[in-house]
Amino acid sequence: MRVLNFNAGPATLPLPALELARDELVEFGGTGMSIMEHSHRGKDYEAVHHEAQSLMRELLGVPDSHHILFVQGGASQLFAQVPMNFMARGKPADYVVNGAWGEKAIAEANVVGKMIGCEARVVATTGMGDGKEKSYARVPQDAEIKLDPNASYLHYTSNETIHGIEFHRIPTSSAPLVCDASSDFMWKKTDVSKFALVYAGAQKNVGPSGIVVLLANKDFVAQGRTDIPKIFQLRTVADNDSLYNTPPTFAIYLIRNVMRWIKSEGGLDAIEKRNREKAKLVYDALDAHAGFYNLPVEKNSRSVMNVVFRLPSEALEEKFLAEAKKRKMVGLKGHRSVGGMRASLYNAVPVEWARALAELIDEFAKTNG
Amino acid sequence: MRVLNFNAGPATLPLPALELARDELVEFGGTGMSIMEHSHRGKDYEAVHHEAQSLMRELLGVPDSHHILFVQGGASQLFAQVPMNFMARGKPADYVVNGAWGEKAIAEANVVGKMIGCEARVVATTGMGDGKEKSYARVPQDAEIKLDPNASYLHYTSNETIHGIEFHRIPTSSAPLVCDASSDFMWKKTDVSKFALVYAGAQKNVGPSGIVVLLANKDFVAQGRTDIPKIFQLRTVADNDSLYNTPPTFAIYLIRNVMRWIKSEGGLDAIEKRNREKAKLVYDALDAHAGFYNLPVEKNSRSVMNVVFRLPSEALEEKFLAEAKKRKMVGLKGHRSVGGMRASLYNAVPVEWARALAELIDEFAKTNG
Repeated sequence: MRVLNFNAGPATLPLPALELARDELVEFGGTGMSIMEHSHRGKDYEAVHHEAQSLMRELLGVPDSHHILFVQGGASQLFAQVPMNFMARGKPADYVVNGAWGEKAIAEANVVGKMIGCEARVVATTGMGDGKEKSYARVPQDAEIKLDPNASYLHYTSNETIHGIEFHRIPTSSAPLVCDASSDFMWKKTDVSKFALVYAGAQKNVGPSGIVVLLANKDFVAQGRTDIPKIFQLRTVADNDSLYNTPPTFAIYLIRNVMRWIKSEGGLDAIEKRNREKAKLVYDALDAHAGFYNLPVEKNSRSVMNVVFRLPSEALEEKFLAEAKKRKMVGLKGHRSVGGMRASLYNAVPVEWARALAELIDEFAKTNG
Repeated sequence: MRVLNFNAGPATLPLPALELARDELVEFGGTGMSIMEHSHRGKDYEAVHHEAQSLMRELLGVPDSHHILFVQGGASQLFAQVPMNFMARGKPADYVVNGAWGEKAIAEANVVGKMIGCEARVVATTGMGDGKEKSYARVPQDAEIKLDPNASYLHYTSNETIHGIEFHRIPTSSAPLVCDASSDFMWKKTDVSKFALVYAGAQKNVGPSGIVVLLANKDFVAQGRTDIPKIFQLRTVADNDSLYNTPPTFAIYLIRNVMRWIKSEGGLDAIEKRNREKAKLVYDALDAHAGFYNLPVEKNSRSVMNVVFRLPSEALEEKFLAEAKKRKMVGLKGHRSVGGMRASLYNAVPVEWARALAELIDEFAKTNG
């Protein structure tokens, strides 16, 4: 029996995508082998690779101006690889920081900047507190972003998974806009043309861990540095259709299955509607007991993907988790760095799971409030 | 029906490892979810992670002096990541080149050397021809390796997959020894203590693509550079038990399944015996028709993993492939850069497949010779 999985990533995947993977695992499409055993240079795998890309292009409306690329290493590797490619000497690289992932992104950019002779700058942050561990409650307004008009790029994190903070707009930027969208990629349509680069670890909304999806403006990629190792140049990935070296073929196959599922569900408009319904169910239940539950994030920065909340005491949080477990709900514990509760409501979480969680939230407050 | 898969990588996997993955794909160990959906910080995944490592340590006899690490990006990324970590200013990094992968490794080291201010040197090569495309027929002798005793490290490729050339000894080195063992990793026991670092893409002998295994001397890792991005420092991987960021959990799970299979088959001594038997069957069949088949590699450098051979004409090579296909044999076409035939005989290839190939080789020569 499937549990109600609210994991933050790796996260629950659509059951039909998993069932198809199971059914095809040993014998793929009458080829006498698993898709894992196929050469990445053969026509059977290439069809999978291109189906994953073309379904993503169709569902998300990715314009011809942008590549769809697959790379390895996780978004954490992109924190280094983006400045390696796109920091230009004499131009700063500007970062918006409103959570732990933004902090990590600029930390790596600082290291790369020292190697290359460029400066990475925080041009807007909503971090509170003087210590090493800052707290965050919102995204910055455009007016707060002190962008250098000459910047190599402006980098931001569209959804801070740990803090549950999400941008509900695309920031205005006169510099090329780079977005780490790992935890809110493809939960709805977005205007990809506004971005120089979007990157996202797959393990939230579109696949398993071990693969990063990039939507990359072709001109931006072509202008990247040529003095870094070939394997790290995004032009290498683009020029070789993400097949310069052996890709994680099974992970890309799984993305294909998830894309098929999104399409079968009615596409991203239907997925967005469901995601908003799920988030409303959970946030409304929490807000109905505002004296009992504490929501640290300002309302207009609340994440549709990751709902973060606290209970009056750690003892009650433990009790809440125990009660959730009785109801077959898992993955509700907050990130170890911030504590509390976190419910991740990615694409593959059904509305019924969100409703069951909302019921628990309501009943628990009534019983323990 | 399973075909006889001689792919060079991704390659055939042990059927029991695949069947277990299929049976557990949707529902892992009664947890109500797939292993892909588990948090990499949870106890269920961690047990898989540690079982993969501990079985590998046991089967290969990895000493306590060495970490077993998992990283992403393929061996091609390690071509850059190794010099980024271990090139020391004022010391050369020395490379043995006896094939295409060694060429690629030093090409990336040259780029990193320019960034860091170090020199990468070819200290032995068996490449023939003046053009860009060199041909290779053997590994160098120790006496040919003009190592700088002060070198940061000596790098070599233990098996050149494309050319079918393998080291059947561990080269003598007064510098830390670094080995790209991607295509001959774990086909037999080896004395790991002699290496500062062994790295291997999993997709030949131990798993699917998308994961690299490293056997890394702990002191060597600790001495690595600290001025490169944190994500690329091997100490980051080691200090966090390969869980600094989300690893490709399903790929590591597959490695666990393959390790279980190797153990169930009697361990690496049994696997080595079988591998030698397979290679002997195929090489003997080719040698028996030495006037018909052309084996470009010198006998004592022949790879046990990748058997490379040519036929008298490209037309006969096409005919050979067509005949192989009739017998359900696939993956025998040589790498596009060198042409000809290549049969990869990794751990998961049964003796019967090698015997069937030997029969084809014999019959085809008799019919067409």
